[in-house]
Amino acid sequence: MKFFTEYLTLQTAKLREYLNITPHVQSVLEKSGIREGMILVSAMHITAGVWVNDAEDGLIADIDEWLDKLAPFRRDYRHHRTGETNGDSHLKSLLVHHEVIVPVTKGKLDFGPWQQVYYAEFDGQRSKRVIIKAMGE
Amino acid sequence: MKFFTEYLTLQTAKLREYLNITPHVQSVLEKSGIREGMILVSAMHITAGVWVNDAEDGLIADIDEWLDKLAPFRRDYRHHRTGETNGDSHLKSLLVHHEVIVPVTKGKLDFGPWQQVYYAEFDGQRSKRVIIKAMGE
Amino acid sequence: MKFFTEYLTLQTAKLREYLNITPHVQSVLEKSGIREGMILVSAMHITAGVWVNDAEDGLIADIDEWLDKLAPFRRDYRHHRTGETNGDSHLKSLLVHHEVIVPVTKGKLDFGPWQQVYYAEFDGQRSKRVIIKAMGE
Repeated sequence: MKFFTEYLTLQTAKLREYLNITPHVQSVLEKSGIREGMILVSAMHITAGVWVNDAEDGLIADIDEWLDKLAPFRRDYRHHRTGETNGDSHLKSLLVHHEVIVPVTKGKLDFGPWQQVYYAEFDGQRSKRVIIKAMGE
Repeated sequence: MKFFTEYLTLQTAKLREYLNITPHVQSVLEKSGIREGMILVSAMHITAGVWVNDAEDGLIADIDEWLDKLAPFRRDYRHHRTGETNGDSHLKSLLVHHEVIVPVTKGKLDFGPWQQVYYAEFDGQRSKRVIIKAMGE
Repeated sequence: MKFFTEYLTLQTAKLREYLNITPHVQSVLEKSGIREGMILVSAMHITAGVWVNDAEDGLIADIDEWLDKLAPFRRDYRHHRTGETNGDSHLKSLLVHHEVIVPVTKGKLDFGPWQQVYYAEFDGQRSKRVIIKAMGE
């Protein structure tokens, strides 16, 4: 059994930003030498998400607008009594989730034709980390 | 360590449809010979979901209505500029997620009494695939 | 390859309640002796969730209010024709999901600084179970 772990450090220019990190996951797969198994891709922060979906800029803008409607910024979140202003970032993170598992078969990311791994930043402009952990043989 | 992978091909009659695929997951478990480990059940498409919940038709209809309220069809999604009409299908997929992990203990799917694995189709009437990947010993 | 499984039994005082179960996950890690791998934390019920986010009481209250807005109690869910009254609990469970994977590296839960594992009860005041399953070496 092989384990291979890498930490991806990201800092977005905007508060909310969506990054296609599939090449990083692919790179971890190659370094790991794993042919069968899986890769966990998990945000290490509580105001970020990781999902698998389409790499289409119009859709990404739709998702951003939709998330901001379902989990909007509000001044009066109780969480803000701590001095934070990112209550909505936590809710957005819960909505899309902070991690995915990517299957690995015959040495490849076993994805359908349009599946791509995205990192969703909901409270950016500072250094954040994503763990990419491959396990298999 | 054993790995066993099967691809389930599905084509629903309706655009949105919800299929209990627990028997398929059970079948993969039996073929794999795994007694301890886990099974990844993951949609290979970006307009479909996989969840674990109750097999109750009234609830399934409630879920469908609820998802369509939170992530409704709209003509004006930016994604539709690509010629697609399935923006809402992507959002529904993000909302329920595209995969689950099922624990395997003592040769059984280690579920509570009501847990069942569902495939949620949000853009059907064409061939779709689900990967079911068992890993363990 | 080591596997170690424990079942956590919980009974909340209130119908909806949010419990930080990180110490239980930590305890399973220690008992398992695993240094590299992962831990699945999965609710065994269809009216409960498991997430990773902040341990801040104001935020927890915000999340509860927000979930109840997105997936409110209603008398007229079709699911209630079965005699149940917990349609909203199922929807809340779908929204936040019922499980997470925690990475384990060098014998530690490989979390960012604020990540904590929460059990979210949406239909409590009765005995519920969570499976915590560690896999690795």
